[in-house]
Amino acid sequence: MSPENLCGSAATHVWTRTVQCSSSHLSGRGRAHHRSHASRNARGARVNSIVTTAGGYFTSEEIDQALAKHKPVLFFLTHGESSTGVVHPLDGIGDICHKHNCLFLVDCVASMGGAPLYMDKQGIDILYSGSQKVLNAPPGTAPISFSERACQKVFNRKTKPVSFFLDMTWLANYWGCDGKPTRIYHHTAPVSAFYSLRESLAILAEQGLENSWQRHKEVAQYFHEGLEKMGLKLFVKDKNARLPTVTTIVAPPGYDWKEITSYIMKNHNLEISGGLGPSVGQVLRVGLMGGNSSKASVDMVLEALRDALRYCHKSKV
Amino acid sequence: MSPENLCGSAATHVWTRTVQCSSSHLSGRGRAHHRSHASRNARGARVNSIVTTAGGYFTSEEIDQALAKHKPVLFFLTHGESSTGVVHPLDGIGDICHKHNCLFLVDCVASMGGAPLYMDKQGIDILYSGSQKVLNAPPGTAPISFSERACQKVFNRKTKPVSFFLDMTWLANYWGCDGKPTRIYHHTAPVSAFYSLRESLAILAEQGLENSWQRHKEVAQYFHEGLEKMGLKLFVKDKNARLPTVTTIVAPPGYDWKEITSYIMKNHNLEISGGLGPSVGQVLRVGLMGGNSSKASVDMVLEALRDALRYCHKSKV
Repeated sequence: MSPENLCGSAATHVWTRTVQCSSSHLSGRGRAHHRSHASRNARGARVNSIVTTAGGYFTSEEIDQALAKHKPVLFFLTHGESSTGVVHPLDGIGDICHKHNCLFLVDCVASMGGAPLYMDKQGIDILYSGSQKVLNAPPGTAPISFSERACQKVFNRKTKPVSFFLDMTWLANYWGCDGKPTRIYHHTAPVSAFYSLRESLAILAEQGLENSWQRHKEVAQYFHEGLEKMGLKLFVKDKNARLPTVTTIVAPPGYDWKEITSYIMKNHNLEISGGLGPSVGQVLRVGLMGGNSSKASVDMVLEALRDALRYCHKSKV
Repeated sequence: MSPENLCGSAATHVWTRTVQCSSSHLSGRGRAHHRSHASRNARGARVNSIVTTAGGYFTSEEIDQALAKHKPVLFFLTHGESSTGVVHPLDGIGDICHKHNCLFLVDCVASMGGAPLYMDKQGIDILYSGSQKVLNAPPGTAPISFSERACQKVFNRKTKPVSFFLDMTWLANYWGCDGKPTRIYHHTAPVSAFYSLRESLAILAEQGLENSWQRHKEVAQYFHEGLEKMGLKLFVKDKNARLPTVTTIVAPPGYDWKEITSYIMKNHNLEISGGLGPSVGQVLRVGLMGGNSSKASVDMVLEALRDALRYCHKSKV
């Protein structure tokens, strides 16, 4: 069975349910983690979690120890953790997982195309993303890729998946990547969405993946410097762990963060989010990805923030 | 809990998995039935089936007897059975189901907008469709509707759904139809697909639903008469049970049906299908729905068929 790439006909998080071969998981903490947790518990898998400070990340030692302790069949990690603005280091983790006979599942929804990622070199077994982030395609499709090791696991499971819709045996055949001569109808795919996804991938390929990573990095640095010049603080202390696509800004002291985001939405037509999960109430979140990863967009956001900080109510206490 | 309407962010058949409250089902036979069967068995529900001749339909007595025998919590029926070209009569079945304390689930993927259907009057508890048939919107979304009785069942289930993605409690809140003041993010919806679905519904509403039913009926009759004038036979004997959106033609004796469909695809750029499930090898299937339900389209198809029957090989045996 060779490695397999296909695309889901639904929102990204259907994939948090896909590797149903496993009965025990370990996952790193974040918003995506919470969904993963809810999702896995819903279908009866045992889920253990390791938790680190919001805005931080796990060391290889911490992961190694946790895998030794819990002995999961799958380790789930979010590469671009959009709730905290962290891009989690991936080097070496695949090897650690495989040492513990564990699959390595990575969510790269908020990072794919915007930050360096090497599925094969980094020993990632299952990698999924979404169409609507860096790729700037309409939402509704979710590319996913399986390593040979993952295929072995998925196609040799002893129990039937609970879901016909997400049964990888059917999907692999439908996408023509199971090596069988005949493809069998499984569902009516969102073809127009697939064409737009394909076009977004073609644009990224024309630009060059490495060029896109570099641009996101430079634009993010330009943005972060601009924020610090305004006196704002970044939520992620470690510069190397700052996600280039989603920036988390410490909610400015004395202000009501909701007033700031509402003011900017109303007066500048820009959507800036508050925190999510572990970062609720603590941060402002700005996503600049794909076509929006440009110095011109940064300047717009900085101007909007400057304006909001001038006009929004600041407590004197 | 009031009746609920929302739209799935995926292919239609995710809905065959939705009413996971039930542990026992009964379903009428057809292609959709086979999927439903595979789908339900996959997640561990007990499924009983009743089978009738391909091209036929069940009488109320047959359904009543089957419900009395199997005592299911859900009865599944396909309204527009596109594999056989049957539009199944629905009057009275809802009452029979409710007499047996059973929910009535109807698949109207191939019929909604093209054939009369009255969810409330016909006592249908769960009704789902697709965007890509009569509505002519891109595939990728699937409207679904629940009666009050179905809501009671779904929201009072004692076990958790196996699927977070299809958990109706989350989805009802996400769509704002659970009456709660706050909506919680559940997934990123395929918004562009929803806008096109909305537009397709607006077009149908402007035309008038009853006018659309009438047009599909007249066009289908015009088509059927044209086919019979050419010496072709219709697969569904009972005129009133012929689905106005998908016509099944008895595969012309002496011909290889695959040669006919390939010839027409190549020379007329029209896709005519062979049979599916119970009708494999027995029929040619022609879908004329939404914008394609017109006498002009019928004339194109008849001309293509006439041409194919002239040029394709006919066995003398």
